[in-house]
Amino acid sequence: MSANSFGKRFRITTFGESHGPALGVVVEGCPSGLELDLKLLQRNLDRRRPNQSAITTSRNETDAYEILSGVYEGKTLGTPLTLIVRNNDQKSQDYNDIKAAPRAGHSDDVWKEKFGHTDHRGGGRSSGRETVTRVLAGSIAQMLCHKLAPELEVLAFSYQIASHTLSEAELKSVSFDKIESSSTRFPGAASSAIEDLLKKSKAEGESHGGIIRTVIKGVPAGIGQPVFHKLKSDLTAALMSIGATTGVALGNGVEQIELPGTQFHRNSQDVYGGVRGGISTGEQMQIDTYFKPTSSILDVAKKGRHDPCILPRAVPVVESMVYLVLADHMLWARTDKLE
Amino acid sequence: MSANSFGKRFRITTFGESHGPALGVVVEGCPSGLELDLKLLQRNLDRRRPNQSAITTSRNETDAYEILSGVYEGKTLGTPLTLIVRNNDQKSQDYNDIKAAPRAGHSDDVWKEKFGHTDHRGGGRSSGRETVTRVLAGSIAQMLCHKLAPELEVLAFSYQIASHTLSEAELKSVSFDKIESSSTRFPGAASSAIEDLLKKSKAEGESHGGIIRTVIKGVPAGIGQPVFHKLKSDLTAALMSIGATTGVALGNGVEQIELPGTQFHRNSQDVYGGVRGGISTGEQMQIDTYFKPTSSILDVAKKGRHDPCILPRAVPVVESMVYLVLADHMLWARTDKLE
Amino acid sequence: MSANSFGKRFRITTFGESHGPALGVVVEGCPSGLELDLKLLQRNLDRRRPNQSAITTSRNETDAYEILSGVYEGKTLGTPLTLIVRNNDQKSQDYNDIKAAPRAGHSDDVWKEKFGHTDHRGGGRSSGRETVTRVLAGSIAQMLCHKLAPELEVLAFSYQIASHTLSEAELKSVSFDKIESSSTRFPGAASSAIEDLLKKSKAEGESHGGIIRTVIKGVPAGIGQPVFHKLKSDLTAALMSIGATTGVALGNGVEQIELPGTQFHRNSQDVYGGVRGGISTGEQMQIDTYFKPTSSILDVAKKGRHDPCILPRAVPVVESMVYLVLADHMLWARTDKLE
Amino acid sequence: MSANSFGKRFRITTFGESHGPALGVVVEGCPSGLELDLKLLQRNLDRRRPNQSAITTSRNETDAYEILSGVYEGKTLGTPLTLIVRNNDQKSQDYNDIKAAPRAGHSDDVWKEKFGHTDHRGGGRSSGRETVTRVLAGSIAQMLCHKLAPELEVLAFSYQIASHTLSEAELKSVSFDKIESSSTRFPGAASSAIEDLLKKSKAEGESHGGIIRTVIKGVPAGIGQPVFHKLKSDLTAALMSIGATTGVALGNGVEQIELPGTQFHRNSQDVYGGVRGGISTGEQMQIDTYFKPTSSILDVAKKGRHDPCILPRAVPVVESMVYLVLADHMLWARTDKLE
Repeated sequence: MSANSFGKRFRITTFGESHGPALGVVVEGCPSGLELDLKLLQRNLDRRRPNQSAITTSRNETDAYEILSGVYEGKTLGTPLTLIVRNNDQKSQDYNDIKAAPRAGHSDDVWKEKFGHTDHRGGGRSSGRETVTRVLAGSIAQMLCHKLAPELEVLAFSYQIASHTLSEAELKSVSFDKIESSSTRFPGAASSAIEDLLKKSKAEGESHGGIIRTVIKGVPAGIGQPVFHKLKSDLTAALMSIGATTGVALGNGVEQIELPGTQFHRNSQDVYGGVRGGISTGEQMQIDTYFKPTSSILDVAKKGRHDPCILPRAVPVVESMVYLVLADHMLWARTDKLE
Repeated sequence: MSANSFGKRFRITTFGESHGPALGVVVEGCPSGLELDLKLLQRNLDRRRPNQSAITTSRNETDAYEILSGVYEGKTLGTPLTLIVRNNDQKSQDYNDIKAAPRAGHSDDVWKEKFGHTDHRGGGRSSGRETVTRVLAGSIAQMLCHKLAPELEVLAFSYQIASHTLSEAELKSVSFDKIESSSTRFPGAASSAIEDLLKKSKAEGESHGGIIRTVIKGVPAGIGQPVFHKLKSDLTAALMSIGATTGVALGNGVEQIELPGTQFHRNSQDVYGGVRGGISTGEQMQIDTYFKPTSSILDVAKKGRHDPCILPRAVPVVESMVYLVLADHMLWARTDKLE
Repeated sequence: MSANSFGKRFRITTFGESHGPALGVVVEGCPSGLELDLKLLQRNLDRRRPNQSAITTSRNETDAYEILSGVYEGKTLGTPLTLIVRNNDQKSQDYNDIKAAPRAGHSDDVWKEKFGHTDHRGGGRSSGRETVTRVLAGSIAQMLCHKLAPELEVLAFSYQIASHTLSEAELKSVSFDKIESSSTRFPGAASSAIEDLLKKSKAEGESHGGIIRTVIKGVPAGIGQPVFHKLKSDLTAALMSIGATTGVALGNGVEQIELPGTQFHRNSQDVYGGVRGGISTGEQMQIDTYFKPTSSILDVAKKGRHDPCILPRAVPVVESMVYLVLADHMLWARTDKLE
Repeated sequence: MSANSFGKRFRITTFGESHGPALGVVVEGCPSGLELDLKLLQRNLDRRRPNQSAITTSRNETDAYEILSGVYEGKTLGTPLTLIVRNNDQKSQDYNDIKAAPRAGHSDDVWKEKFGHTDHRGGGRSSGRETVTRVLAGSIAQMLCHKLAPELEVLAFSYQIASHTLSEAELKSVSFDKIESSSTRFPGAASSAIEDLLKKSKAEGESHGGIIRTVIKGVPAGIGQPVFHKLKSDLTAALMSIGATTGVALGNGVEQIELPGTQFHRNSQDVYGGVRGGISTGEQMQIDTYFKPTSSILDVAKKGRHDPCILPRAVPVVESMVYLVLADHMLWARTDKLE
């Protein structure tokens, strides 16, 4: 119904421009009585924060959040939960030249075409800064998911950056600590080579894309709503709403497309990604999200406002979108049948 | 809000089980005064129809539709438009053995898990037969799209089946007539080899997947609604709601992921797929939809109720989903700005 | 989102014109496993049916329904439930004169203004015949409500017709059998006087309005969703969506408006109508729905197609709308809190 | 879909508790390029503000608003527009006794029943303070309405307070200046008598109800979406979502219910209230909203936190709800037909 809302039962509405006063999100439909884990919330924000390492943009934002509504004595009230983050480092004068000449690869021109009146400073609403609100809301969803399904585990990580890919062996031993131990969020041996590449690219105004893989364990069987809100449909829509994404694959659905059915269907867990008929089977799920190389290259990049590869900072955003979909569908499943 | 509705302005609600009395769709939000092209509607149904050639399932359905509401003197009334197709060839006794032993690769078991009470005959609502209602609605969307954007052209075709892929030269000369001239809807030299493969696979109970590419020309610039209903997000959701799909790629967003940004962004049309910031640029769009090999293999297949490869019949379904998204967004754009 | 859909969790989409092939409804969100009571469904249809007595319109419709989807072996599947009723007595030639001269009090002209292209025959979609789909859906809602809240009782009846009003004593002894024992659905002594008045008015082309009172007992406490889907707000929206309604009063909220608060709030049950803060208290609810005199008077009436007072046939429609709201909110309440 | 959202095209989501940090609203769907009239916004807030006169509650709030998003250089961006108001006078210690003993007539107990965990201070989300966000959003809707329909005029005023009612002559000469010239917003001779009554009632902890009449001129013909979003249905739902409302009447639909149709339908403007078939006719509309006596009587009232009659402050809230519905439907009508 509305362009800035996502979810049917656990529903978020996000707002805010890159250089306006604040960005924020209203979360509706979160049941009352959920205890908030503010450390988790801050940790997720820090993982998405600009300037967190030498390979991310140097825009300086502390991303301190404020809760405006929906919480009392540390628990949700069942009323809309609102969280905001103020913009500090607005340096909008940097962007005055953009007013005349829109940046290549950005969407300044199509927003102008669409809306007539636009905020040219740093992309306005089209800026990647918008994703801070996804992490705010996704963290609340994460808390709810873990309450409703204590076994649930969502791990997102850089699976490919430029031409570096995790090996089969590395894939088998991925853990949250390994992911977070490197600024690339690539839990493999090539991590330091990638770090070097990205430092160089940051200086030169070059950029790189890649794949974020998400592995989900412990999803309750039976969630997802055919035929238009299948779990695979909502998950991929969620991921494709992130700015730089260009493709999604469920399970081995892109890589193994050439196999005949008798081979493909032999190992259902790998190939279906834990979803059949749009409904979770309870098995492990796997989703690959493809990111194009960052579009802020060359000129703009020279000002230091440049992520040479968005993947490290996008990992918590991907996780957040996954949690939002899972929270939505776990609540939705409460009305599936009698009793 | 509801599992069987799709779209925000041009909104459809589909219903019907594979072996129930009928399948159908209610279309809401179609403006009044649209002249219906019933030949187009029938042609699209025929392109999706089972038993249309030697390489498709032999389920015998004529798929004659009936219009129940919303049309008077050949034009839409602005009221809900309802179309149904009755099920003729229900042979539900064929499926009695499924009640005890759910079919591998199908979702009979997860539906049972979710809903408790299910219709085991031929998959019930999870059957691919459900897509007939997408073609009914998609054809109405197609008529509206061509009225609102007369330049618009949507071409979907088999780009890859098993290991056969269209060549660069073949890609450049794709046309509707070439696509429709072969039962594989693969507009290239390998078409007859694919046909042979599929005949053999149909007999043996083998199956194959592939990629349907959709090329869209003449989309008006400025459609798509960031941040959660970006054109790329809604298109992905639409395509990933089709039963056998396992991945979606926008432009060259999967194939060229390794390129550095300075090369990737050189040719914006190829790489962005005609969408930037989630909004159409007016340039050509390209979307690849990945399909896994059909899951009705082996035992069930032996009864002849078996598509050895779903792609030929899925082509009009993919087109329909694309038209539904475009119609929705063209109407939505009417409220973007003052004037 | 869509003009012909109602409800958020238990959601209906209705379709059909007065003189088109059929009218119908798709019910989404009804949990699986609900056993259908087809006798109840038929009884409700019969109570709304034209030509059921000497005081109703003589349009001849048997209103036999057909279930197109969503039911298997007598129980709901959790998939969309679709029911249709075909139009038999279409006599559309009777309405050809309307094409030139729209009927006073009807909305033919405003539909023409709005949509340009309209179906002038018998009001098209604006006809009261549309309410047959409300009764189809409302009956399913009724079955669900009684399953979820076995104590629930909804009684709607004519409380006032023209200047005849039920006495306090009659109000205290209202029962379903008393309501149904008279063609006026006015469970009081004046019933036969009203019957005589309406027969005379039918012959003369006169019409009358009145009030339908609905008394609801056994609503579970805690349903209703502030601030915009308070129970009182959704009930009002539901009732005011019926064609001839002109007002709604909750409890004694219209009659006792002059009382000072210290008197008004003394007897909470009477005054609040069982709703406080938009949430059910568990006490008895009471809602009055005001109907204007039927607008088909004089010329059109002379053809015998005329309800001199719509209230008797509107009673099951009012009940249906109430059940739809209650079913929706009982499902909605399942996600209010943890556990 | 969500309890705190209202509207389909022009859509608002409100948030905030009476004693939390802030209340606010996100407005989605407002077209870009609308120039904001900040004086109008402040004037409307001042008209709703507590402590504006001797007859309103003495809670001390300046209601200074802040715009967080959606506006740049004084015009809307087409992105979500967010406005908040911080709570200053929270005195929550006053409410500690409520935790043990819920207030008569308030909904503290039903919220507790529904959500388990609640904010007992001043009603939390159920407080009338919530309406400040309706005025924020309604003012934006008002600006849009006047841009889209420059002839539009919406006048709301106290038509009845306790037993005082405006005379026919007074009704004919109502104007915005007359309404605003008295603290009662009752544009008639009895205004000073009402003022005296309310001062006395404020001191004594007594309260009074009444009727707010809204007269609307210059609505474009053809807005409203049958069958479930008729203009009358959406308007009455909007009004019945306000805390203290107990009834609504369209035109003379409650007062003249006894008249036979041949008299009732003689003067269509009076009786239909400018809506036929759920669609605006372009004629003058009239809606009466009934308010019960304020429930904060006696004990609580003695603390001075007490509106002896909510009507004077509710007038701008009623106006706001009307503007929200009109803005929504004017945008919705843009997709009614082909042009």
